[in-house]
Amino acid sequence: MTPVGIDAVEIWTGKLQLDLPETFAPAKDEDPDKYRKGIGLEHSSFPDVYEDIVTMGANAAKRLMERKGLTPSDIGRIDVATESAFDNSKPVSTYIAGCLEQYYEEDFRHANKGERKFACVAGTQSVDDAYNWIRAGRNRGRAALVIATDTALYARGDPGEATQGAGAVAMLVDEEPDLVEISTEQGYGSMDETDFLKPNQQFPSVDGKRSMQVYLARMREAVQDFESVAWDMHPDDFAYIPFHTPFPGMVRKAALLGYRHMSRDTEIEEELSGELGYQPRQDEYTSWDAYEDAIRDYMDELKDTDQYRAWYDKTIEPTLGISRHVGNWYTGSVHLARIAAMKYAADNGRDLTDEKLLIGSYGSGAQAEIHAETVQDEWREEIDQLNIDAQIAARYDLTYEEYEQVHDSHNYEKSNVDLEEFTNPSDEFVFTGWGRMNERKYDYVE
Amino acid sequence: MTPVGIDAVEIWTGKLQLDLPETFAPAKDEDPDKYRKGIGLEHSSFPDVYEDIVTMGANAAKRLMERKGLTPSDIGRIDVATESAFDNSKPVSTYIAGCLEQYYEEDFRHANKGERKFACVAGTQSVDDAYNWIRAGRNRGRAALVIATDTALYARGDPGEATQGAGAVAMLVDEEPDLVEISTEQGYGSMDETDFLKPNQQFPSVDGKRSMQVYLARMREAVQDFESVAWDMHPDDFAYIPFHTPFPGMVRKAALLGYRHMSRDTEIEEELSGELGYQPRQDEYTSWDAYEDAIRDYMDELKDTDQYRAWYDKTIEPTLGISRHVGNWYTGSVHLARIAAMKYAADNGRDLTDEKLLIGSYGSGAQAEIHAETVQDEWREEIDQLNIDAQIAARYDLTYEEYEQVHDSHNYEKSNVDLEEFTNPSDEFVFTGWGRMNERKYDYVE
Repeated sequence: MTPVGIDAVEIWTGKLQLDLPETFAPAKDEDPDKYRKGIGLEHSSFPDVYEDIVTMGANAAKRLMERKGLTPSDIGRIDVATESAFDNSKPVSTYIAGCLEQYYEEDFRHANKGERKFACVAGTQSVDDAYNWIRAGRNRGRAALVIATDTALYARGDPGEATQGAGAVAMLVDEEPDLVEISTEQGYGSMDETDFLKPNQQFPSVDGKRSMQVYLARMREAVQDFESVAWDMHPDDFAYIPFHTPFPGMVRKAALLGYRHMSRDTEIEEELSGELGYQPRQDEYTSWDAYEDAIRDYMDELKDTDQYRAWYDKTIEPTLGISRHVGNWYTGSVHLARIAAMKYAADNGRDLTDEKLLIGSYGSGAQAEIHAETVQDEWREEIDQLNIDAQIAARYDLTYEEYEQVHDSHNYEKSNVDLEEFTNPSDEFVFTGWGRMNERKYDYVE
Repeated sequence: MTPVGIDAVEIWTGKLQLDLPETFAPAKDEDPDKYRKGIGLEHSSFPDVYEDIVTMGANAAKRLMERKGLTPSDIGRIDVATESAFDNSKPVSTYIAGCLEQYYEEDFRHANKGERKFACVAGTQSVDDAYNWIRAGRNRGRAALVIATDTALYARGDPGEATQGAGAVAMLVDEEPDLVEISTEQGYGSMDETDFLKPNQQFPSVDGKRSMQVYLARMREAVQDFESVAWDMHPDDFAYIPFHTPFPGMVRKAALLGYRHMSRDTEIEEELSGELGYQPRQDEYTSWDAYEDAIRDYMDELKDTDQYRAWYDKTIEPTLGISRHVGNWYTGSVHLARIAAMKYAADNGRDLTDEKLLIGSYGSGAQAEIHAETVQDEWREEIDQLNIDAQIAARYDLTYEEYEQVHDSHNYEKSNVDLEEFTNPSDEFVFTGWGRMNERKYDYVE
């Protein structure tokens, strides 16, 4: 079977940054370590006044197409995943295609465009749609452009304000991919939950504690579902396990749960049994609560063992390298985590060819998806061409007062905010204002 | 290759009706024939105060599952298409699954849920996603539940107010389907257009004239794209051609264009040449405008020929039988048109087995999609079980004043409207109010 997967990626970060320990914490009169250590974030990315989900997505897509030598006729579908849409009918993909058509001489007239919404898991769902389209024999040799783009802003004063972010990840899904092949097998954990939602709102209603519980519960179900069609996983099966990363602290919890699950009935459980005892088994307990308590106690000890720490440092920590400096990108987050890990391997001279990744995607509301990927021969050439480090370093560093103005300028309820741009756009798409039918308008600036 | 397609459908109409010629026209001081003949609509469906996109979708899905003897574990994905979403993050499919889980003892814990947005074409895109998922070998023997659900309301006084509607179509996409097999071949016509959009609005901004032009232009491109991978179509290749039906008058224009295109270089063009001359060919004209004018003149004459009228009455008119009485259902509209035609055949004793349908889907913004379907052996048993006629007949007939109140009660900007329900819910899901996090809440009432 011809491999199908992600051929190439490009990342576009919002051009402004908020320093969480140094700028946000003092203004809130908080300990900088709450951000550095607790949540695990150093900076958030923010869009400049001329940036939004369309410009970031189009700019990432243009970089991707140029680097891969593609023109619009090579693209058979454009799928956008977002939970920051500003239109209830017209999909973001049409706006992005409109931008790209200002730049290219060809158009995307015969490409299927769409938009998918399910909190942060929609980026992976869109990759899956593209994969299925190719496997269904409908792509006519063309590739799919999948763009996960979000401006993750919270209401001022919301606890989530510390985890904001803005950026886009563009992915090319194709046959014979250069980066990763995607497994046919998938696992899902999905239940109707009221943990995070945006009912007729730009900024979310969040039950943070519930959302963390739901993330873990759905992820566990997805892992079990995946194992039912794939194989019983072992912690060492994967070079890296990129998780959806609302903030690194959440991934620490998910990773521990994953390790506990995958190490059950392995030599790892045996080896640790002297120190921790064996893992609790459900049939040893008379109630689910008692079993859960015992599991929690086991994990409290597990997380401080040398074995777990070594595994975490090797398999999980490298996935957090980008998100620590850009915050939550919602639909793009898990895809940033994949790239961060592969970049870490490239930077440290590790060959990943034929190694496996396990991808743990999640969206509030709530659904987790698990699938595996196999790294392809050309991965290193792809990763080496990313310029995300330079983009991150070039961001304008906001004062707290400037941050407040930027937040207001992106708040649809404060449409009269007139704010000068902080950076100069160059060779990119920019937002230029609202049109006659209240549509958002864009230009390419050289 | 195992056939994949639509195994069964169910329809749920909003329980209120507005009589356009008899109630709406007099209140607007307009000629009833503007609606009956010009637009082609008799009634619009409206949701009662306890109905919305979730209840209509869940009620259609429940009917479908009960009729097919399915429980949640038979369903591997729930895809909802809508342009009436009330949440920017949490997908409607989770709300619908939550409703169904109140009724069934099982849950949809391992089903992939999603939501797709692209004006009215998203219903067909969701069917395509489900088709591709099965063809990709990822369904594990399970079916997909695809739900197109919309409340198509316009601002009071907008020209679109005459074309409103509300309802849901639930479709089961499966292997070895009972209703229709879907072609692998698809054609797309898709360009960034500002004809109809909802930028941070519940009700659309509409450029009606532009939207009609764009519908025809994109449909023509989709037909050409489809023919490039399928075959050169002839008007008699299809038993019926269901089009997206914002109002029947639009379909009259699309059908004429389709007939003109498909009859070119056939015995039909030859036969009509005595009366009309041959169709204009682009190379006979020095400008595109002159060619377009000539085509328009040819079509003006074509539409009054006996040949065209007979074809239209046989192939197109039966697709309008339901929409004439319910208005525009946005994402569900083209799927209602398919059902209307098949119902017409069943009611008139025509056997459709192995006959072909051509499906012309469209969404503003803008994209048309064309694919073919082959009617399956069991189609008649499926169609005979629909109760849409009874649902339509049972609707409460609104006075104009009541219509104004109902419109207000569904307007999110008028949250203080307190209106008594007009009908009594029974054995169905109902909206019960907003929760603590501003989520919409639902119950099943017996």
